[in-house]
Amino acid sequence: MKSSAKNGSLLALSSSPSTGLEVRLAARPVGLPNLDHFDVVEVDVPAPAPGEVRVRNLFMSLDPGMLMLIAGGSSLPMPRYEVGEVMYGDALGEVVSSADPSLSEGDLVVHRFGWREYAVAEASAFRRVDKAAYPSPSMHLGFGPVAYIGLMDAAGLQPGDTVFVSSAAGATGSMAGQIARLKGARRVIGSAGSADKVAHLTGKLGFDAAFDYHDGPVLDRLREAAPEGIDVYFDNVGGEQLRAAIEVMNVHGRVAVCGALNRQSTARPDEGPGDLLNVLGKRLTIRGFTLWDHLDRAAEFGEQFRDWLREGSIVYDETVISGLESAPEALLDLVRGRHTGKTVVRLGS
Amino acid sequence: MKSSAKNGSLLALSSSPSTGLEVRLAARPVGLPNLDHFDVVEVDVPAPAPGEVRVRNLFMSLDPGMLMLIAGGSSLPMPRYEVGEVMYGDALGEVVSSADPSLSEGDLVVHRFGWREYAVAEASAFRRVDKAAYPSPSMHLGFGPVAYIGLMDAAGLQPGDTVFVSSAAGATGSMAGQIARLKGARRVIGSAGSADKVAHLTGKLGFDAAFDYHDGPVLDRLREAAPEGIDVYFDNVGGEQLRAAIEVMNVHGRVAVCGALNRQSTARPDEGPGDLLNVLGKRLTIRGFTLWDHLDRAAEFGEQFRDWLREGSIVYDETVISGLESAPEALLDLVRGRHTGKTVVRLGS
Repeated sequence: MKSSAKNGSLLALSSSPSTGLEVRLAARPVGLPNLDHFDVVEVDVPAPAPGEVRVRNLFMSLDPGMLMLIAGGSSLPMPRYEVGEVMYGDALGEVVSSADPSLSEGDLVVHRFGWREYAVAEASAFRRVDKAAYPSPSMHLGFGPVAYIGLMDAAGLQPGDTVFVSSAAGATGSMAGQIARLKGARRVIGSAGSADKVAHLTGKLGFDAAFDYHDGPVLDRLREAAPEGIDVYFDNVGGEQLRAAIEVMNVHGRVAVCGALNRQSTARPDEGPGDLLNVLGKRLTIRGFTLWDHLDRAAEFGEQFRDWLREGSIVYDETVISGLESAPEALLDLVRGRHTGKTVVRLGS
Repeated sequence: MKSSAKNGSLLALSSSPSTGLEVRLAARPVGLPNLDHFDVVEVDVPAPAPGEVRVRNLFMSLDPGMLMLIAGGSSLPMPRYEVGEVMYGDALGEVVSSADPSLSEGDLVVHRFGWREYAVAEASAFRRVDKAAYPSPSMHLGFGPVAYIGLMDAAGLQPGDTVFVSSAAGATGSMAGQIARLKGARRVIGSAGSADKVAHLTGKLGFDAAFDYHDGPVLDRLREAAPEGIDVYFDNVGGEQLRAAIEVMNVHGRVAVCGALNRQSTARPDEGPGDLLNVLGKRLTIRGFTLWDHLDRAAEFGEQFRDWLREGSIVYDETVISGLESAPEALLDLVRGRHTGKTVVRLGS
């Protein structure tokens, strides 16, 4: 990773800066990326043209799925990152200068312009959000909607289901397990990568059972945790955990495929769901999904989530990293399993 | 396979026989069965007790899925065959003696008592069918409903879809391809195991394209046949064809898993759908199904099927084998790919 100042001097941040930092993909890695695959660059920040706004970012979202977009394989749910271009992604910012009547200075907005201190673009590319909606504005970047869509639409969660969630201490998994419980699951089981995370799942997050996937065959751990089988598997990882879940699944079980962390973190092709006879014999459904196909449902979740937060019935975990330049290292740490809950980068003061 | 006459003499068949033949599973094979794994046995045929009927079978259904029930693995959609017991399965017969008011002599009935000349059981175990419904009574044993449910419910066929069907010259595949076309598919592609069958698909059955899966990598053949990708895969085989289909699938593609012939005919574990990134990236749905979960839809298909037959817009293929004792060999031939269309055994004269 190299940092370059476009004009040789770093200017103090102000509400009307002339330059700002951004992070670009410097090279496409073979296998996993390291810091050399990112550049931090200072660029001009233009004043907004008519119809545009300038937004100062407050938080940006990190997501293990970004590794897939860095690797740039053949079938991706979103465009891959291009070398030399800014890493796009969800971010939350404040309008600091507006040349469009639809947005005013001080408005809080979410957008997809990603890893940069300032974003200047047409006003329609930004969506204003309610400043008072959540205890922390970073919650607007949360993965609750993803978990909700996966459980309700992709997996068709029914009250009474036994639900297994992998990567359950992560941003999506921690939401998925809690939402499953709140939506009537009979039993919620989580897997994670350390004893601390396992304790966190059964403690603060209220999972009925949890295990460390390093502790012996996943199939054995899952059978112990789910003696009556599972009905729904919320899959963030693929690989051994997916195959174990399918083995333990009850008739008419459903897998929502949300991520393939195993594949992403090893960069090995993954054999997928294993023997087809289970899929046929138990009439299973395995379904990949992304939030982008179901954006109409996100608002429904938002209301529900606010109610749960008010009641204190859901816990929102996040890991907050400071400073744009820390983002590449934070992304690598995220994939190494070093964070709990949602990971966001806080920009500015 | 051994034949044994229970009392040392074979009696001539009549409408009131005292004995009849049945086929039992003689031993559970390791790998594929051969004729030694079946016994043909002569047994007493009792007169029906009050509430029962005696049915003389006319046709019985053979199905590649029977091999799975013979192998008796851990997750089966139906009970496995037990050693020493009759091979159960769909059969069509005529009531020859009734001790229940709900059925009369001469009624045509379907049932699940399988590989035997006579079935005696409670009247409620038999379902009367309309003698005039189809040009041949054996059509009551057809797999059209399976193909229909798989396409419409498991795969959610939409007009304009490109559909790929494996084992497309078989009982289910030949129906699936034709039903897809009749339900508005834009393009229907089939695979089969010989040049004759391929010609049959694009000729008599009206497929838009077909290939022999022995002719080089399936992925290459499928790409040639479906240059714009496929939306639905009706899977009768698993293995290489499933993986190729997933590779060629368009976004939001759907796989209906109806059979696992590849697994059944090689008795090797099958690696299933391959790399999970396709499932995630293209938001695919892979769904196992059986007719038994959707029996309420079978009648709907029946009406539609009769209309298509009347219009001449659908072709019903069958291979008819004569005599109960030929059934084991015919089942093995079926799995070896030697039959086209539905395979039935005709009993009696």
